[in-house]
Amino acid sequence: MLTTELSDADVAGLRANKERLQGWIHHSCQWGSGIRWGDGPTDTGMARLSLSEEDKQVRSWFVETTKSLGCNVTIDEMGNIFAVRPGRRKDVPPTVVGSHLDTQPTGGRYDGILGVCAGIEMLKVLEEKGIETEGGVGVVNWTNEEGARFPKSMICSGVWAGQIPVTTAFDLLEVPTVASLPTAASAPESMKSALEKIGYLGTVPCSYTATPIAAHFELHIEQGPHLITAGQHIGVVTSVQAFRWFTISVTGRDTHTGTTAFEHRTDALYASAAMMVRARKVAKKHSCLASVGIVEIKPGSVNTIPGFVSFSLDIRAAEREIVLACEEELRTEFAAIAAEEGKGIGKPCRVDWRLDHDSPAVKFHPDCIECVTESTRALVGADYKSDKPESLYRTIMSGAGHDSVYTSLRAPTSMIFVPCRDGVSHCPEEFSTAEECVNGASVLLQAVVRYDRKRFQ
Amino acid sequence: MLTTELSDADVAGLRANKERLQGWIHHSCQWGSGIRWGDGPTDTGMARLSLSEEDKQVRSWFVETTKSLGCNVTIDEMGNIFAVRPGRRKDVPPTVVGSHLDTQPTGGRYDGILGVCAGIEMLKVLEEKGIETEGGVGVVNWTNEEGARFPKSMICSGVWAGQIPVTTAFDLLEVPTVASLPTAASAPESMKSALEKIGYLGTVPCSYTATPIAAHFELHIEQGPHLITAGQHIGVVTSVQAFRWFTISVTGRDTHTGTTAFEHRTDALYASAAMMVRARKVAKKHSCLASVGIVEIKPGSVNTIPGFVSFSLDIRAAEREIVLACEEELRTEFAAIAAEEGKGIGKPCRVDWRLDHDSPAVKFHPDCIECVTESTRALVGADYKSDKPESLYRTIMSGAGHDSVYTSLRAPTSMIFVPCRDGVSHCPEEFSTAEECVNGASVLLQAVVRYDRKRFQ
Repeated sequence: MLTTELSDADVAGLRANKERLQGWIHHSCQWGSGIRWGDGPTDTGMARLSLSEEDKQVRSWFVETTKSLGCNVTIDEMGNIFAVRPGRRKDVPPTVVGSHLDTQPTGGRYDGILGVCAGIEMLKVLEEKGIETEGGVGVVNWTNEEGARFPKSMICSGVWAGQIPVTTAFDLLEVPTVASLPTAASAPESMKSALEKIGYLGTVPCSYTATPIAAHFELHIEQGPHLITAGQHIGVVTSVQAFRWFTISVTGRDTHTGTTAFEHRTDALYASAAMMVRARKVAKKHSCLASVGIVEIKPGSVNTIPGFVSFSLDIRAAEREIVLACEEELRTEFAAIAAEEGKGIGKPCRVDWRLDHDSPAVKFHPDCIECVTESTRALVGADYKSDKPESLYRTIMSGAGHDSVYTSLRAPTSMIFVPCRDGVSHCPEEFSTAEECVNGASVLLQAVVRYDRKRFQ
Repeated sequence: MLTTELSDADVAGLRANKERLQGWIHHSCQWGSGIRWGDGPTDTGMARLSLSEEDKQVRSWFVETTKSLGCNVTIDEMGNIFAVRPGRRKDVPPTVVGSHLDTQPTGGRYDGILGVCAGIEMLKVLEEKGIETEGGVGVVNWTNEEGARFPKSMICSGVWAGQIPVTTAFDLLEVPTVASLPTAASAPESMKSALEKIGYLGTVPCSYTATPIAAHFELHIEQGPHLITAGQHIGVVTSVQAFRWFTISVTGRDTHTGTTAFEHRTDALYASAAMMVRARKVAKKHSCLASVGIVEIKPGSVNTIPGFVSFSLDIRAAEREIVLACEEELRTEFAAIAAEEGKGIGKPCRVDWRLDHDSPAVKFHPDCIECVTESTRALVGADYKSDKPESLYRTIMSGAGHDSVYTSLRAPTSMIFVPCRDGVSHCPEEFSTAEECVNGASVLLQAVVRYDRKRFQ
């Protein structure tokens, strides 16, 4: 039956299968298994860095599985995989659900993975119910969303959206300090060479013109405490906060730890530590977040005061202007800290800022948000028998960046959040219950069907 | 002529050769040349990590050169090289001058190197003047004094003095983060395997009983600003400050930088940065030094809050008791900082201390100090024509540890300091003038001769 022939009740009744969804998730997590946190068979985190051998294996599984569910598979030059189940109409771009199968070095089983597996489950339900869509529908696995191995998050949806030159992405080198990455120990690898090595350097250009889409939906764990704290099942994501990533370099002077009085030091690490402490204070004042995740130190010897330190700085807020105001104050404060260290001997520290990534605040598309909202109301109203279904979900802003940030520039886009335990992610213990996962997958499934109906009404 | 037959005036007139000493220093610095800091042919620092290929090359030169100056060479199982010029009496241990040829990864041309090269110059002057000593005299090159590649400074004089088990030293692994060390990129190497690789795993036990010495003198750059600021030529070193080295481990929780509010974080890096800032404040209060030189972070990703950080902490003071008092206060303060971070969610950071190295305060031997003092007075009185020679030198405490700390436990020991530019060391710009170097070498030469005469008067 065609989506446009379904009754409203038919659509409202569409559900993903809980056990099958768990199957997709945990089967796929056999590749790149990480740190154990509990006693159960699936109580381990994930360490599936982008374009690693494990990523290659899960990609093969994704391609085989989606093909077996009737999809045509396209791989672009950044290794993005587009699995599209044809619709009745052959001349229109597909509505897709997208997310990513790569993880942080000490990540969990849900960030990204849930979104892709819910897409596969969507394909399975459509097959099972014999539902034909008007336009095609598909699942996209975006490459290197995490930015953990190759230090630019969402880079491949960024190339697809025309926001990052493909050559920049090809030449991007892996972070040599990332845990458990054997190849990084020697010469850092470029994305292009890593794509070649695992056989995912596709021939199709990475571009929204070569692989156009009609809309993009993404299901994701919240990665924050709001839903779990409020006992709500679904977050209807309406926006994404702005963020800017920097590398801060602090240059001082190598000297001996045992013979150099504090007033004779130009200690790049002391200055950096003071900056890290100050960053939180200033960010709080601006209602921003500021975080440091990577630190490099030279020369790195117990009895030598470091003459050079660089560290990452990630500043986020609901609006770009707030991020910029926080950044401006931090530039002043960091300069003052640098000037103070070594001042007495006329050799102050120097501080330099390099902008690595600039992600504007995003407002998602009202049509997509409407499809998600209707699906959410249908689900919570029926499955939780509530008179006040609006108490069981909320609209929400995403704190994290997602590939949906870039797709929103080229196609109507929105996201769906489900609760996760303690609101934590990017850690092995990252967890959502099977019920929460399937709620999200059912909303995703319905939203795609509703969007298809809306397109061709 | 025998040392005991020389007149006092003969001894007071003994001088090292300025140009020849420069020749020994800069010739030896061709192996392991480091960062350039000026335009002159010798305006480069050094990067000669212990037991590296470059260290092997300079060791070969040291062995050949001392042999050509009449020495018998003994290499012990830690690669310490004892080059001894026999004296008239064959049944007594030699008086030696010792220091080290290894450097920091971004070190200079004088720390350690001056002391060994001044020893070679001493041998050359004795040969040139046809002076025979009563007991033998020698030069020792101690292995891995810096503790830069293998993170335990003075470890091989420590083994020799019976303070560190030889198995501990054999098993010590190199620091994988040390700059420009190709082998460290893969599996870290142990000292024993590194000794084998460069052919310096000697068969003689590393022990003060297998290679006994009568006394140990060490010439070194001050590595501090006192002499250069006061315009003084020689520091008669009477003591060495105490120091303790720790690895501090801070455990928090990996979470997402974009979605985790400050009050939900257990940020091991934020807590560590606060500890680094606090360490200086507390150390100042106790008249100690506290320094951090190495930091390691997991997982090391821009958008993940680090759940684990470890850092080195080096605490020093004139007396061991002061170091212990500072340490005690820091243990309390660090525990409070750790308890504060993550307190709101009941998941505070945990902090653990591991003691890596404990070097007590040392008082040098009065006989050695007397020989150095007499030699210093003879030199400055004659060469600087001063009525107040005592204004041109001072007694001084060493801020840094040296192999002399360990030798002092087994033989009369003392040290000689010469000024260095800006009081800095452990950096490429580390520098002492040719005049300052030769002053120190002349005092060293005379001190050894005086000690030999004193022994057999």
